Amino acid sequence: MNKVAITGYSDTKFSSDDIPIESSMISAVRLLFEQTSNLGQKDIDVVLTSTNDNKKYLAPIVSELSGIAPKISHNVENLCSSGTNAAVSAFSYIASGLADVALVVGAERFDSPGQVLQWDDSRGEFKHPIFWATMFTKAHKRKFGTTNEQLAYVSAKNHRNALDNPNAYNPKKYTVEEIMNSKKLTDDLRLLDCSRPCTGSSAILLASEKIAKKFTDMPVWISGIGQKTTSASFTKNDLTSIESTKIAAHEAFTMSKTSPEKIDVAEIHDAFTVCELMVLEDTGIAQKGKAGQLVSDLYNTNNKKINPRGGLIGAGHPLGATGISQIAEITRQLQGKSGKRQTENPKTGLVQNMSAAATSSTVLILES
Amino acid sequence: MNKVAITGYSDTKFSSDDIPIESSMISAVRLLFEQTSNLGQKDIDVVLTSTNDNKKYLAPIVSELSGIAPKISHNVENLCSSGTNAAVSAFSYIASGLADVALVVGAERFDSPGQVLQWDDSRGEFKHPIFWATMFTKAHKRKFGTTNEQLAYVSAKNHRNALDNPNAYNPKKYTVEEIMNSKKLTDDLRLLDCSRPCTGSSAILLASEKIAKKFTDMPVWISGIGQKTTSASFTKNDLTSIESTKIAAHEAFTMSKTSPEKIDVAEIHDAFTVCELMVLEDTGIAQKGKAGQLVSDLYNTNNKKINPRGGLIGAGHPLGATGISQIAEITRQLQGKSGKRQTENPKTGLVQNMSAAATSSTVLILES
Repeated sequence: MNKVAITGYSDTKFSSDDIPIESSMISAVRLLFEQTSNLGQKDIDVVLTSTNDNKKYLAPIVSELSGIAPKISHNVENLCSSGTNAAVSAFSYIASGLADVALVVGAERFDSPGQVLQWDDSRGEFKHPIFWATMFTKAHKRKFGTTNEQLAYVSAKNHRNALDNPNAYNPKKYTVEEIMNSKKLTDDLRLLDCSRPCTGSSAILLASEKIAKKFTDMPVWISGIGQKTTSASFTKNDLTSIESTKIAAHEAFTMSKTSPEKIDVAEIHDAFTVCELMVLEDTGIAQKGKAGQLVSDLYNTNNKKINPRGGLIGAGHPLGATGISQIAEITRQLQGKSGKRQTENPKTGLVQNMSAAATSSTVLILES
Repeated sequence: MNKVAITGYSDTKFSSDDIPIESSMISAVRLLFEQTSNLGQKDIDVVLTSTNDNKKYLAPIVSELSGIAPKISHNVENLCSSGTNAAVSAFSYIASGLADVALVVGAERFDSPGQVLQWDDSRGEFKHPIFWATMFTKAHKRKFGTTNEQLAYVSAKNHRNALDNPNAYNPKKYTVEEIMNSKKLTDDLRLLDCSRPCTGSSAILLASEKIAKKFTDMPVWISGIGQKTTSASFTKNDLTSIESTKIAAHEAFTMSKTSPEKIDVAEIHDAFTVCELMVLEDTGIAQKGKAGQLVSDLYNTNNKKINPRGGLIGAGHPLGATGISQIAEITRQLQGKSGKRQTENPKTGLVQNMSAAATSSTVLILES
């Protein structure tokens, strides 16, 4: 398997802008070209888009509008994890030897059709994410004694981290009390427990070992990949654990010969506060039932290692862009280029992204 | 690069059925399981769907409904060539070593949103495929003296081939005269020059060399892959030649160390009659300007080597399924299992598929 590095990235401002998805994608691609040394249109073999937008043929359209004539181009869709699915697809085109350089651009509009899982109306309200997140929250509280205060720390921490991210959708400072008193949406979830849909885009450039140094002095290597789909509904879920993330994390750690203790910085799919706790536990970064305490400690010591750019709660959640933006952030962190939100000298990073009541997960290990 | 084989396939009846896309996909998957020896749900590492349908999360949904919990699952969309794009994506997951077995299921409904390229309304009527096909037809006639009769031979041949395909959408016998007198739609195209959108699905199973023989005694190897996107509009098209197919074919022949003379049987994207002529020329199977004569000869000698299952004109064109169905047919031909439409002892086959005014193409070489 050929080695593959991340050699460039860009993010746009996450917003409520009512702009066409192509425009959003092109903004991220243009910025990636501006920020990447020696990158010409002819270097690019693969252009993948990741979005839930209903528009078709977006990868060739983005290619044409960017002056690129790639070998391989198509869209990848898998709800909220579309971005990491596209990144792994790009990885495999390079790792197999079919390509050397791949551009992946993820984008979404604030009104994306991917926000509600429509496939089975017989599931009633569970097609809306907030209801499965409520079930998870209630179950985690019952089993581990997780408190509303611990959940609020996730949101307080991620909103605070987002203050140092100029592209964040919602960079406001909230106290734990303000979060616990925000508008009640369900039995167990309040407004500030939830990530917000928004418009945004992000792009990354992947390259084979033989060409990576052309574009950057600091390539960041994808050393571990784990993906798992357990189902498309709740049939196989333990409500206090994310089986798909557990399996994906095990696979990614095995491939990269690393372990949870080695992770210096991580991007975690905190669609709702409880998700960050469950993922920290199921990746092994926290012991089972102890993530609430870990997050409170991180907040109180102003440690940014988990979701430094603000997570989905602080930075916003433009579905198809989220996974790409997570990868961009870990790359930036490992290069020491994250500015005010830089963590201390990280060597190994983790990206975890997921879809649809956590029924599909991707875990990536990145190393400098 | 690990070797990858096609080790199973299935097609459903192409029809006008008004059924959900999931049902169509599941029919093809169920049939593939019935027809493939020793295949268990646990063997499958990757489930890809290929469709232009607006529904989301279809790969996990198909996985769940089929009892599969894959590592990797997502949809691939690239208009008419979605199927071959998904097949190449599956190939790369296996060739890179990330996976050993991949199931790819393509499907479309008769009313697919992929039938009109909506991205730029300023293009006016050219968003409808028939208008670019008319331009191609007029240009080919002017430059090479191609006649309406030669174009009609494409349709007569493919409709006749479809008579031996029990899954074909439109298996009717038409004379060249009937085709030339069918309803006039544009200056240069009549109803029977056009493929018809329909509902249908097809699935293929790809496997690495180390496991391929578990599923079949006759694996068919993907020995050559070429893909190219030249643009998303007409900006780079010579109207008498398909640049994306030319480049993709060159790449596929180079990778497989074969040449056009070696091709015993081919599936060609005949969305309109002129497309079959242009593709035969741009893959090198016919000399430039001579495909009209070749197709007339094939018809008059009852030679089925080009589009044996009836092509898109005879078999129907359910967009996301088309590429998968083409690969299934070439695999079947190379295994000698095509029944009444079997060509004589083929060893090397070609699949050509394309999108959107031929701006993207895939060419695959398959060998027994």
